[in-house]
Amino acid sequence: MKNKYELIYEGKAKKVFSHEDLEKVIIEFKDDATAFNALKKAKFEGKGKLNCLISAKIFEFLKKNNIPTHFLELKNENTMIAKKIKVIPLEIVLRNIAYGSLCKQTTIKPGTKLTKPLIDIYLKNDELNDPLITKDRIKLMNILESKDLDIIIDLTLKINGILQSFFKNIQLQLVDFKLEFGYDLKNNILLGDEISPDNCRLWDLNQKNDIIVSLDKDRFRNDLGGLIEAYSEINRRINDFFKLTK
Amino acid sequence: MKNKYELIYEGKAKKVFSHEDLEKVIIEFKDDATAFNALKKAKFEGKGKLNCLISAKIFEFLKKNNIPTHFLELKNENTMIAKKIKVIPLEIVLRNIAYGSLCKQTTIKPGTKLTKPLIDIYLKNDELNDPLITKDRIKLMNILESKDLDIIIDLTLKINGILQSFFKNIQLQLVDFKLEFGYDLKNNILLGDEISPDNCRLWDLNQKNDIIVSLDKDRFRNDLGGLIEAYSEINRRINDFFKLTK
Repeated sequence: MKNKYELIYEGKAKKVFSHEDLEKVIIEFKDDATAFNALKKAKFEGKGKLNCLISAKIFEFLKKNNIPTHFLELKNENTMIAKKIKVIPLEIVLRNIAYGSLCKQTTIKPGTKLTKPLIDIYLKNDELNDPLITKDRIKLMNILESKDLDIIIDLTLKINGILQSFFKNIQLQLVDFKLEFGYDLKNNILLGDEISPDNCRLWDLNQKNDIIVSLDKDRFRNDLGGLIEAYSEINRRINDFFKLTK
Repeated sequence: MKNKYELIYEGKAKKVFSHEDLEKVIIEFKDDATAFNALKKAKFEGKGKLNCLISAKIFEFLKKNNIPTHFLELKNENTMIAKKIKVIPLEIVLRNIAYGSLCKQTTIKPGTKLTKPLIDIYLKNDELNDPLITKDRIKLMNILESKDLDIIIDLTLKINGILQSFFKNIQLQLVDFKLEFGYDLKNNILLGDEISPDNCRLWDLNQKNDIIVSLDKDRFRNDLGGLIEAYSEINRRINDFFKLTK
């Protein structure tokens, strides 16, 4: 006898529940925030709701632009219904501007505009602290077929093109972002996880000077304060954009 | 007014001095040992001499097998004369068997025989703790031209073929090794640094059971004791081999 909504998986920022339809899951966005591989933790009331609403809008926009995603519909403000996927244990990070860990692992200066997008791949493994992984190591570990890795990288580059211009429209610089993919029950590759200020670096372009104003999880990582205010501002700009373009 | 032998560079395990011939340098092998990015340090009397003698023999053998190296001749037991090179700041690690850091950064079990050699590249940068680096990051940092990276990887695979059979002849399993390359004054790519139990994992094949007996720096890394005895054994086997094949 199964409970109607059984907890299938709990991550750092989300809970995944079963759905009566076996091809679907319910994803609940939590208020928890973690950084530096969960060495730093906090809770921000309202973050789960904001990330859920922002992700839903962006997933819809990506879907209109022919990107296959797991998103189906909002269930309520902090819960969405998504296709059930088998998550590929890789985090695909695309960087347009050098910032964060890249600058701690190379001699590239923070803020450097990259001549072309850089894709960094990390192994999704909490015990190992999500280490950077090379394509050769991925092949060796038999995580996925080479052609599927190529598909995922290609999708990530396409998503970057779509999101860069989307965010530019609402005066945000897309610095970098992290994606996760998975296979649906028919073995199609879908974009999973979320697209929110938790996994996108977004800098305010409404700044007359060269000061970086982060409207993303760096407010928590770097103790800048005003996280909920920043996420709310992102949500407001996205909503305004869709009202205008309706 | 220059000193005859001016110290040009001091690394963790070697000192490099100028030579009256500007195309040459003098490399002195130190007794210092470091591990885990110099978090662990010690001194082993006689290690410098053993690594210098072992490296000289192996460089000579590689030269006979058409691998371009910086080695010219032994000056004395712990000092060699080499071509002056501009070191490329990359450490090229080739692995035949999974061991060490690879197994801490992936889910591959220690001792796994790899279906084909894995090449891991690290940025040679003490301040950054020599981090793993991807080919895309190397390109972005303009460390070297793509074609030169291909040449280096190709040389590393060739060296692996030569050294695997060489060590097998003297009952040693070549588990993995780290190489460094550089440009000579005519811009030729040469193998630099050293080839010794400091940067090769060598397991004794004279074992009837499956117990791993490390005859390399793992004796220091993993507090196994008997480092000098192990390095002496490697040196003895190499000398015996060359006496027999003369």
